[in-house]
Amino acid sequence: MTYPPLGDMLATLRDTTPLVHCITNYVAMNSTANILLATGASPAMLHAPEEVAEFTAMAGALSINIGTISSPWAASMELAARSANDTGTPWVLDPVAVGATAFRQQVCTALLAHQPSVIRANASEVMALAGLASQGRGVDATATTDDATAAIALAQQQRCIVAMTGESDVITDGTHHYRLTGGHPMMPRVTTLGCGLSALVAGFVAANRDEPLAATMAALACFSLAGSRAGQQARGPGSFQVALLDALYTLTPEDLSSLNTLEALHAV
Amino acid sequence: MTYPPLGDMLATLRDTTPLVHCITNYVAMNSTANILLATGASPAMLHAPEEVAEFTAMAGALSINIGTISSPWAASMELAARSANDTGTPWVLDPVAVGATAFRQQVCTALLAHQPSVIRANASEVMALAGLASQGRGVDATATTDDATAAIALAQQQRCIVAMTGESDVITDGTHHYRLTGGHPMMPRVTTLGCGLSALVAGFVAANRDEPLAATMAALACFSLAGSRAGQQARGPGSFQVALLDALYTLTPEDLSSLNTLEALHAV
Amino acid sequence: MTYPPLGDMLATLRDTTPLVHCITNYVAMNSTANILLATGASPAMLHAPEEVAEFTAMAGALSINIGTISSPWAASMELAARSANDTGTPWVLDPVAVGATAFRQQVCTALLAHQPSVIRANASEVMALAGLASQGRGVDATATTDDATAAIALAQQQRCIVAMTGESDVITDGTHHYRLTGGHPMMPRVTTLGCGLSALVAGFVAANRDEPLAATMAALACFSLAGSRAGQQARGPGSFQVALLDALYTLTPEDLSSLNTLEALHAV
Repeated sequence: MTYPPLGDMLATLRDTTPLVHCITNYVAMNSTANILLATGASPAMLHAPEEVAEFTAMAGALSINIGTISSPWAASMELAARSANDTGTPWVLDPVAVGATAFRQQVCTALLAHQPSVIRANASEVMALAGLASQGRGVDATATTDDATAAIALAQQQRCIVAMTGESDVITDGTHHYRLTGGHPMMPRVTTLGCGLSALVAGFVAANRDEPLAATMAALACFSLAGSRAGQQARGPGSFQVALLDALYTLTPEDLSSLNTLEALHAV
Repeated sequence: MTYPPLGDMLATLRDTTPLVHCITNYVAMNSTANILLATGASPAMLHAPEEVAEFTAMAGALSINIGTISSPWAASMELAARSANDTGTPWVLDPVAVGATAFRQQVCTALLAHQPSVIRANASEVMALAGLASQGRGVDATATTDDATAAIALAQQQRCIVAMTGESDVITDGTHHYRLTGGHPMMPRVTTLGCGLSALVAGFVAANRDEPLAATMAALACFSLAGSRAGQQARGPGSFQVALLDALYTLTPEDLSSLNTLEALHAV
Repeated sequence: MTYPPLGDMLATLRDTTPLVHCITNYVAMNSTANILLATGASPAMLHAPEEVAEFTAMAGALSINIGTISSPWAASMELAARSANDTGTPWVLDPVAVGATAFRQQVCTALLAHQPSVIRANASEVMALAGLASQGRGVDATATTDDATAAIALAQQQRCIVAMTGESDVITDGTHHYRLTGGHPMMPRVTTLGCGLSALVAGFVAANRDEPLAATMAALACFSLAGSRAGQQARGPGSFQVALLDALYTLTPEDLSSLNTLEALHAV
């Protein structure tokens, strides 16, 4: 296959340090900001209804994550998502544990009306959003990513990009589909890495607006490569998290360009 | 003394990866999730009144910590604690700085009505809850744990387990009492370790429902052992925190079984 | 120049472990608490309107940071700032991204009425507060600190100390002005270090109430020295953050006393 120019996308991210407006969960805020800063984007966390629409319109992209959702935050997320849609600002939805409670489904239904550019989720969450059977019990992925069907169905339904992450990742815009392997088995033992990845997708899409599918792949490829490297040094999840931030910081465009764990899915 | 089978309890935790519903303070959320994941449990942080009761009923255990309490959160904690009590889900109360303000005392009084399975607290907080004189000025323990009297009195009053932690720990169900030593002097220099320990107690009790007293001891023993090991490697509280997560991850059931810093208290 | 006795101020901080009441943003809470604990102060994070005034009156100092501000939090901050002012408790304002939205300007205007002891901010924020032209787009400093004029103007307007941090720092009470260099280029790649520094200023001022200008310099000098040391060890922002906490912990009063990167500004 011909690889998309993932290295160029990282170079552009670092040259432009896109401002990513994050409305995310309390658990993920600090680690998400550090993931963006280490890679080369500029995070801003704010959620007040008085200012979210104004700020989203200034940002390069918006990232919304419903992890510790409550009604006031859901209202702010809607204001921000509407502003993103109105101003042509790309935005990413991370529908944490959407299958777990009725409340989360309502929140996601309302947000989907504002047309996210990318949905970054695990397999359980993708299946819940796609209206397929979900066995999700919460934030864990219990379904495998072996089957890309749900991701493609969701991308076609919502006319957006879907990045379904897990042991291997599926990235699709409903027409072109890719699978990415790599990463490290210790990644699920560190909290909110997926949340941070969603915000990083927003950063890459902000920096590379004309190619959102490849930009999404570039974000996932950064995580996959940095995760592999961190895993070689880590003695456990504490040192893994430290090494992951260091690896995101030291990753070069050339590293991404020589990536060989991405494959196009021709028939799913 | 005959040791309770603490190693078996860690093995069961890892085999069953119990889902721990945490309603905790903003400072502790990330570190608590990482402590649970490193040891082998599965954390979920959510607090919306629309979903807490539903979620608690699905969880293996609930952990409530009042650190950054406000009225809306207190209301959600009550809904969750009631759901736990109604559905027989064990739950742990961490009454952060309960002696510091009248508001915290009101919140704790309301929560105690829902019968926690375990109270994990420092000596100042135990004394405040037990109605004894407290010199607490906030989140710090100013009283010593040399005297187990307050812990035993509280356990008897509330008919629950009390885990009073400090330089040494006291664990009691009001009838049987234990003291655990170990850990490391650097532990109080890292924020929210006690908060994370409370959630870990919830994880152990979820995985070992028939033996909540021994399960509580197992959680504290994990922290004590991992803290000792982390202290041997750390150059300060930054590297201590990293090493603690690594040590929780690499701790084996055999390590717990060979623990020799737990003693039964026959006369207090 | 004759150096203020910065080393003595660190010794006093460690001897008295001042209680610092922090009302800060969600991103910064954990790292701020760890920065205070590593250096030798005692953090407490709480924000409920039912208890903030009561707690501020007990604390050694108050630190307010508007990063993830919302109306309920702004109301609590006002209660706390009023209590600080009424009880003579020193307090520090960190006006995160004040120039970015109208809402932030309103919040800061209300807080400034309660007379902060110290404002710790980057150059964009200082200029926004001073009513000068600001090019700030958010949490990043886009203006340089080469010009101390705005900091001095703000200190004179508000009759308080201003600590304007960046590649080099300016500390002024409107009459005496100092510049501090040092630190490390990796510091802006770790989130919320500035937020933590604001709280550390509160800790130093609490411990050294008679000399708030020198106390503010001591806090900044700790960060500068610890940052330099951390940068020598770090392989990226993950290991930098760990090394910074370790360096704050191991820093001695003698280290501060031999600092040679502080200079008085005689003509600005």
